[in-house]
Amino acid sequence: MKAILMARPEKGGIEFTEKAEVPKPGFREVLIRVKATGMCGTDRHIYDWDPSIRDMVKPPMIFGHEFCGEIAELGKETNGSLKVGDFVSCEMHEVCGRCYQCRTGQGHLCPNTAIYGVHKPGCFAEYVKVPASNVIHLPKNLPIKVGAFLDALGNAVHTAMATEIPGRNIAITGYGPIGAMAAAVVEFCGAGSITIADVNPLALERAESWKKSLPSRRKPESIRIVSMNANDRETSMRRTVEETNGGVDAVLEMSGAEKAINDGLRFTRNGGEVVLLGLPSGRGINLENYKQDIIFRGIKLHGIIGRKMYDTWYRMLALLGAGLQIEHVVTTESSFADCEEAFHLFSQGKTLKVVMYPNGK
Amino acid sequence: MKAILMARPEKGGIEFTEKAEVPKPGFREVLIRVKATGMCGTDRHIYDWDPSIRDMVKPPMIFGHEFCGEIAELGKETNGSLKVGDFVSCEMHEVCGRCYQCRTGQGHLCPNTAIYGVHKPGCFAEYVKVPASNVIHLPKNLPIKVGAFLDALGNAVHTAMATEIPGRNIAITGYGPIGAMAAAVVEFCGAGSITIADVNPLALERAESWKKSLPSRRKPESIRIVSMNANDRETSMRRTVEETNGGVDAVLEMSGAEKAINDGLRFTRNGGEVVLLGLPSGRGINLENYKQDIIFRGIKLHGIIGRKMYDTWYRMLALLGAGLQIEHVVTTESSFADCEEAFHLFSQGKTLKVVMYPNGK
Amino acid sequence: MKAILMARPEKGGIEFTEKAEVPKPGFREVLIRVKATGMCGTDRHIYDWDPSIRDMVKPPMIFGHEFCGEIAELGKETNGSLKVGDFVSCEMHEVCGRCYQCRTGQGHLCPNTAIYGVHKPGCFAEYVKVPASNVIHLPKNLPIKVGAFLDALGNAVHTAMATEIPGRNIAITGYGPIGAMAAAVVEFCGAGSITIADVNPLALERAESWKKSLPSRRKPESIRIVSMNANDRETSMRRTVEETNGGVDAVLEMSGAEKAINDGLRFTRNGGEVVLLGLPSGRGINLENYKQDIIFRGIKLHGIIGRKMYDTWYRMLALLGAGLQIEHVVTTESSFADCEEAFHLFSQGKTLKVVMYPNGK
Amino acid sequence: MKAILMARPEKGGIEFTEKAEVPKPGFREVLIRVKATGMCGTDRHIYDWDPSIRDMVKPPMIFGHEFCGEIAELGKETNGSLKVGDFVSCEMHEVCGRCYQCRTGQGHLCPNTAIYGVHKPGCFAEYVKVPASNVIHLPKNLPIKVGAFLDALGNAVHTAMATEIPGRNIAITGYGPIGAMAAAVVEFCGAGSITIADVNPLALERAESWKKSLPSRRKPESIRIVSMNANDRETSMRRTVEETNGGVDAVLEMSGAEKAINDGLRFTRNGGEVVLLGLPSGRGINLENYKQDIIFRGIKLHGIIGRKMYDTWYRMLALLGAGLQIEHVVTTESSFADCEEAFHLFSQGKTLKVVMYPNGK
Repeated sequence: MKAILMARPEKGGIEFTEKAEVPKPGFREVLIRVKATGMCGTDRHIYDWDPSIRDMVKPPMIFGHEFCGEIAELGKETNGSLKVGDFVSCEMHEVCGRCYQCRTGQGHLCPNTAIYGVHKPGCFAEYVKVPASNVIHLPKNLPIKVGAFLDALGNAVHTAMATEIPGRNIAITGYGPIGAMAAAVVEFCGAGSITIADVNPLALERAESWKKSLPSRRKPESIRIVSMNANDRETSMRRTVEETNGGVDAVLEMSGAEKAINDGLRFTRNGGEVVLLGLPSGRGINLENYKQDIIFRGIKLHGIIGRKMYDTWYRMLALLGAGLQIEHVVTTESSFADCEEAFHLFSQGKTLKVVMYPNGK
Repeated sequence: MKAILMARPEKGGIEFTEKAEVPKPGFREVLIRVKATGMCGTDRHIYDWDPSIRDMVKPPMIFGHEFCGEIAELGKETNGSLKVGDFVSCEMHEVCGRCYQCRTGQGHLCPNTAIYGVHKPGCFAEYVKVPASNVIHLPKNLPIKVGAFLDALGNAVHTAMATEIPGRNIAITGYGPIGAMAAAVVEFCGAGSITIADVNPLALERAESWKKSLPSRRKPESIRIVSMNANDRETSMRRTVEETNGGVDAVLEMSGAEKAINDGLRFTRNGGEVVLLGLPSGRGINLENYKQDIIFRGIKLHGIIGRKMYDTWYRMLALLGAGLQIEHVVTTESSFADCEEAFHLFSQGKTLKVVMYPNGK
Repeated sequence: MKAILMARPEKGGIEFTEKAEVPKPGFREVLIRVKATGMCGTDRHIYDWDPSIRDMVKPPMIFGHEFCGEIAELGKETNGSLKVGDFVSCEMHEVCGRCYQCRTGQGHLCPNTAIYGVHKPGCFAEYVKVPASNVIHLPKNLPIKVGAFLDALGNAVHTAMATEIPGRNIAITGYGPIGAMAAAVVEFCGAGSITIADVNPLALERAESWKKSLPSRRKPESIRIVSMNANDRETSMRRTVEETNGGVDAVLEMSGAEKAINDGLRFTRNGGEVVLLGLPSGRGINLENYKQDIIFRGIKLHGIIGRKMYDTWYRMLALLGAGLQIEHVVTTESSFADCEEAFHLFSQGKTLKVVMYPNGK
Repeated sequence: MKAILMARPEKGGIEFTEKAEVPKPGFREVLIRVKATGMCGTDRHIYDWDPSIRDMVKPPMIFGHEFCGEIAELGKETNGSLKVGDFVSCEMHEVCGRCYQCRTGQGHLCPNTAIYGVHKPGCFAEYVKVPASNVIHLPKNLPIKVGAFLDALGNAVHTAMATEIPGRNIAITGYGPIGAMAAAVVEFCGAGSITIADVNPLALERAESWKKSLPSRRKPESIRIVSMNANDRETSMRRTVEETNGGVDAVLEMSGAEKAINDGLRFTRNGGEVVLLGLPSGRGINLENYKQDIIFRGIKLHGIIGRKMYDTWYRMLALLGAGLQIEHVVTTESSFADCEEAFHLFSQGKTLKVVMYPNGK
């Protein structure tokens, strides 16, 4: 079958093949014929052979962990509700089921997690084998272009749902693919004001163009797009702080940049929260104003990883079923055969979300 | 000044006058020139001289407690942020500030509450005197037609915010004025599916017409309008129960009808919640399936009164500032002089929300 | 092996046998040698052959669902952390793992639940076969007399943990076995004041004697034991209402009596909660003051069933590990052979918790 | 009257006087005759004339903000429930009542807070003038030695109540006065296991001696006292991490030390929380393992300041009324006249809590 391998332990060491072996589903496993896949930041780290990823990935291996497809074959003893032909996606975090976290409804925090597409073969292939327990049914009318990246959309939904959105003032730091999804999610969920901050002019442009596309009922003055490098009242966060209650109710931190985390704290009202999804390039972060911002101003921080298993999936599908528009975050579509070019674009930050299809769109 | 009095302790005992005395604001009080007022279910109870209201209202008295207007005069020692000419509304529940509830951020549950327009003179008048602490600034661009009934919209927002809305399946039982507002609120806040149930064909028609008015992004199949008297799958709640997780995540109960409360429990999924705002005509309610629905299925009920002071006001204004459409719930507009006709219509259930203006619209 | 059967579909139709067959653990099942068992209210319903239980239990069947013991044999593919000889108990609610509730950390509310000892053979036997996933390790130093009824203690812990206990005023309506456990739990967890209400003089006496047994640091005036039939200030709930904030923060309802539920609502402060575990004898409950208590006073009700899987188990074991004293709720100990007498006592309400051992204590 | 002044803007610039003027209570103010006072870390910063405090305190000024006493005189229009002779304490944070935080039940986070004893004259005096709204009634049987430091105990209660305590594994980093109070609070509130970590041998000794004083029902093995400098399994946090679920449910951070914050994160289980009260000496904190601990392990941090107005006070008094033992944290008692010696001891870390009486104990 066709597939994309991380073939060699080096930057850019990927390889398109037509001769990968179709996996065989085992006990409580399911084989899925892949229709569309999404490219994730983690895939870029693999492509770039970042030090952070080297301990986890063992080349040569098929990678990729965002996709949708149809069930092609059921292994033994699979969940009775799955049938060949079902349109599905899959939570690719495989958890142990025995630890404290798994036994208390916090499986997404299982310390024994293995990720398909990172620790085990993934979905950049015509067929992928996954645990039956992790398969998610999709509605028939969901475009495969969207089904391709539900894993990433789930990150955005998980982050947004970690705080209260309706009628609250929200800021998003970082308008990359997941930041863009988060913006769409909080807009759809009735955020009061939304402030989107980035340093990259291209990102700011994309945010402006999304804002213009919104249905007329959303008042334009309730969305501000600002540069994190600006200082004047109109184009910086300053006006947001003035016009909200001394700061926003919650920041969704999507960049991983130390400056964004520190600025985000300053933009948050006393008693507000900063929800953290963005991954820094290094290990640590210096919180410059810990005493003032965290203690004296009573602010909460919480880190988000993955998707709640499976609460996030239910709510994400409900939002899509209600009409959440999200296709605009896909700015590149490609076939597996053209993966090198797609990865190159993505690696250089020239595109938001990339969707790849086994045989072209 | 012009005003509407509950003049006599009898059904229909209201009276329009042009000779009411303009009140004088005292210590920490503010005088407001009224621009528009809303008619509330409580006003109907006063108009109908319901037994439930007789201990509270002492005719002759100006009643009414939903309004917006401009500050006309400040008493002594008022809140420093209030100025003559400010466009404002007011929380008409006056609380004691000393009880446990007031001292722990639950002022809306103060056992010593007095309501302007019920226990004290109200806003169906050209001028109304209120406590400075309760005044709420409104944005300049808010239509007075909407500013007129923020108290009632606050009930809907308070009810909706008592549960989580985004990406969840919500049912609303009772599509009267507040039910209609709640529907608009949960739609705006990203509810997954919305099911609206009523027994009244006129109410169901109004719900259908609201549904048609929504921006195209909201998928029509995510909103179902059903008759509580129907039994077939298509026009009853049955299909909602099948298509959700064995029932909705939350019911917002807006009718006060015993049947609606019991049916609402049945429509709720295991572990879901029923948020209760509707007032029954009598004192009690028989929960038919307490054992099965509340205990075995682990359902939560919670009663809602008033608006959170003042969290609900902040979030309501943020929703309006973001674009929440709500004017459609007003189906009658009137001048104070024509109040008899307006009350007659409202008392007979022939209109949703009524807005009255001191001198016509 | 020795076992107690519900042998005949009739009141008192139980039977002690020495010839039951030892079950064989199958796929992902575990065989446990039973050391001690607890008698639950459900077992009494079976013994009494209550109409409420007839659809679920198919005589002749070994019943019982509270126990502790040692793992005797592992079936295939059991959880890797289980070993022969381990000291364990077991959550006897077997859930489907595929429904919304199971997939979102609310397995205790799974609509497809089967209960070992009710729908399937139970633990009143020398050996019981259970699902490996449901087995709970116990600390070696836990007395088997306590290990015998962790299922029931879990009900009490689940109910108490559904609200906040430390520094809050708590009332418990119904001092039967689980009410007695709940009292011990909330005392241990730092409840501010505790009021225990019952109608039964024997229950009130037991509560008084528990109170006397507490370590001296608990101030006696912080625990009141009252009769639900009393009206005078000193022996009724009236004084509690006066001395708290117009009512307690939370009632734990353990009786299922309509009067207790209605009185409990009245004893609760504005904005408080009533957590409901007690099962009424019939289906429904008439809430006499729904309008006043639930709506106007903003009170929450929530129904509790089973134990959170497995959060409740972790916290219960942590409480026992910290020193929670609970043995006093056992007022009868018996061998399986003497089960008829034990059931007779229990059925007549003459004892709190009954613990039975396969071969005597 | 007798009083202690911060007399000169320099280290140790305090002065005992017998000639301070008795303040006169004004509008909505109350004069309190002081019976006992507590010395707080902030008072030490004043005594040491720390740069962090210089902008706030204007010498010469009476300082001190922890005390209890009797109402001596009422100003005009005070809260109707206050009477001369009442035994009271006072929340010394005076908030504006008009900001978002004040209007939404988060007054302790008011950005316009002024602190009596820091920004305004305080309680190290025979008489202190405070806002009537902030006065708290105390039970008659509360020892004045405890009433002296309820402000500080409130910090500990606020921190502990920010997470769930009963049946959970808790760690406390820093066993200074407030850490010692927090330990007593979580023990009383049914914490599962408690681990107390400090670097100071004297602090560890004090913690051991507290542990020995506990009532016998608390199992000694459920409390561990460890050195943050140790590495071996028995005397370090390592064993706690092994014996809990890969880490504790919550850390209460009482030290402000960067190492403690970073270690605390490592000691916390996936999905746990770190509640932060300790003030660092500088402005910022470097989170060494932000990516791993906050993001990948999904941990929450939240900063705590002051006491919830007035929820914390209600719960603290309920805990004391139930029997919470706390006097042991007072290791020095002094008269105002001997304040220099007391401050000297405290400033050198040689004592836990210091209580000072106007005229000796």
